[in-house]
Amino acid sequence: MTDTGAPSASGRARITIREVASAAGVSVATASKALNERGRMMPETRQRVQDAARNLGFRPNAMAKALVHKRSFTLGLLTNDTYGRFTLPVAAGLSAAMADRGVSVFLCAIDDDPERARLNLEAMEDKQVDGLVMAGKRIDRALPIQFTALHMPLVHVNAACPEGGIGFVPDDEGGAHLATAHLVALGRRRIAHVTGPGGFAAVHLREAGWRRALAEASLAPPGEALLGEWSERFGYETGQRLFAAGGEQPDAVFCGNDQIARGLIDALTLQGLRVPEDVAVVGFDNWGLFAEATRPPLTSVDMEFKALGREAGLTLLDGIDGRTVAPGIRRRPCRLVVRRSCGGET
Amino acid sequence: MTDTGAPSASGRARITIREVASAAGVSVATASKALNERGRMMPETRQRVQDAARNLGFRPNAMAKALVHKRSFTLGLLTNDTYGRFTLPVAAGLSAAMADRGVSVFLCAIDDDPERARLNLEAMEDKQVDGLVMAGKRIDRALPIQFTALHMPLVHVNAACPEGGIGFVPDDEGGAHLATAHLVALGRRRIAHVTGPGGFAAVHLREAGWRRALAEASLAPPGEALLGEWSERFGYETGQRLFAAGGEQPDAVFCGNDQIARGLIDALTLQGLRVPEDVAVVGFDNWGLFAEATRPPLTSVDMEFKALGREAGLTLLDGIDGRTVAPGIRRRPCRLVVRRSCGGET
Repeated sequence: MTDTGAPSASGRARITIREVASAAGVSVATASKALNERGRMMPETRQRVQDAARNLGFRPNAMAKALVHKRSFTLGLLTNDTYGRFTLPVAAGLSAAMADRGVSVFLCAIDDDPERARLNLEAMEDKQVDGLVMAGKRIDRALPIQFTALHMPLVHVNAACPEGGIGFVPDDEGGAHLATAHLVALGRRRIAHVTGPGGFAAVHLREAGWRRALAEASLAPPGEALLGEWSERFGYETGQRLFAAGGEQPDAVFCGNDQIARGLIDALTLQGLRVPEDVAVVGFDNWGLFAEATRPPLTSVDMEFKALGREAGLTLLDGIDGRTVAPGIRRRPCRLVVRRSCGGET
Repeated sequence: MTDTGAPSASGRARITIREVASAAGVSVATASKALNERGRMMPETRQRVQDAARNLGFRPNAMAKALVHKRSFTLGLLTNDTYGRFTLPVAAGLSAAMADRGVSVFLCAIDDDPERARLNLEAMEDKQVDGLVMAGKRIDRALPIQFTALHMPLVHVNAACPEGGIGFVPDDEGGAHLATAHLVALGRRRIAHVTGPGGFAAVHLREAGWRRALAEASLAPPGEALLGEWSERFGYETGQRLFAAGGEQPDAVFCGNDQIARGLIDALTLQGLRVPEDVAVVGFDNWGLFAEATRPPLTSVDMEFKALGREAGLTLLDGIDGRTVAPGIRRRPCRLVVRRSCGGET
């Protein structure tokens, strides 16, 4: 596992700086200075070495790069999302954007355990990562970490962000507005809202987006938002209750997540109501396999976590490179994924 | 971001080797030799330095450790599972077991893109990781990688393993046997099997486990295994077909995955059949939120990916430490998670 001459992943023997120097007709020390853009030499010499390195496919090894640049070209991703529904797309977007820039990402799964968090942070300090991404499960909870003790660039994704920090979260209000405005545009007039527990900031933001879209269309909510649980069971029971009553019933329901939407659709189907003909339904999360398996497939709001991970990583690199990054929360737009349950698929 | 004297994650200023040397009354060079267990010195001196280091909470920095041990104390995890249902528990089990041993894990998401795989492998070589874990989506497909060109210890998890390699996969046959034997023990006698496409090795292994459990109980299969898709739709349509026919119907169905089981249960419910009273149902995957949301909650086979990730990591460390590791595939036991759909929950 030495670096010199071992075949690389692409199957060629790995090129050493010695070979570059020899091809360019200079000493190893000169080749090193030319490649690191340090020290004085003739521009032609520098160019000749750089051409030779490029032609031979020379890649400096990471430890040498770290010593020269005082950077390790590594980041840590800390997450308490063991289920992974939120963090996995963040990790995929981050990892792809970083790989394209020669930066590798350590995955640190800390559950919600402060001791495991401490252990992983010490490991990240030992590995001298250039910065950290903290990814959570909800926008109103911080990871179990003493941020004040961390002396390296940090960004937060889908988690609470301490005063003065840099955070990236989905625009829940905007996403809910998108979903509700789409139902309005399809001609629905009595659009109910069934959602999760009031202890979540996202619940209130999504409710606000629903209200704003209705107000813009001069529509009254057909009732208060129905707060409960993030579960199919709650969606199912609420669907039974909401449509069992006599009187004027909703012609659409905007649900706070895909599980609620799915339970609600199942309750409507068992009551003989047709989705979307009688009642249009839209969810939130766009949880792939789940939204596609609903009968009919579920229109849903995607929080674009992959883009959030990519953007958080690029912003972190800016901070590591010494560029000024303004503190504060960035709310990034959601995207509506139209399937059959809203009646708007063309 | 220099290492000396910067506060650590635990809030204390980071201890330097200079302070350890001073506390022990020796030179920095002697302290270094004592801590690295190299060079000759009085055992009392070595002990005094080690005691001072422990008392002060000294942790050698990673680069120094790497230079001494010729190891980077890092691993790479390559995965083509962007959806993450399989890889995430593998990553969590691996990351936790490695963190406990001071080893950090790089996450490399390569989709199914050979170019992205090459880019990530080159990054892992540049970072001089000590070894690699390759985690896939199915036991009969390799990742898009030229394994012959990799010159470092490797293990494969839930993926095809090249000749002479070391692989960890769930015991699909054993898991299916567990599920079917459980239904037999509950008194079911006509146990059907509805599963995924014949192109998957797992389909044939699970069918074999179903047949073995029936044979052991001297029961005949009520018909051939019904192969189709890994989808709710297939489960739903098969449930309609299987129970619409007259004649003697199955009193239990062992399904090849949780999605099929869920679709099948929905079809039975709409036909007025009760689960588990009329028909017991068991799934495969134990995909948490999904299995719990089924009405009734789904009994399912868990492939124990977290344990698989942990064990793969420990085996990889053995290889890195120069211990002999026998090549070949390790099939690890699955676990039956009993919920209400099989009628066996106590």
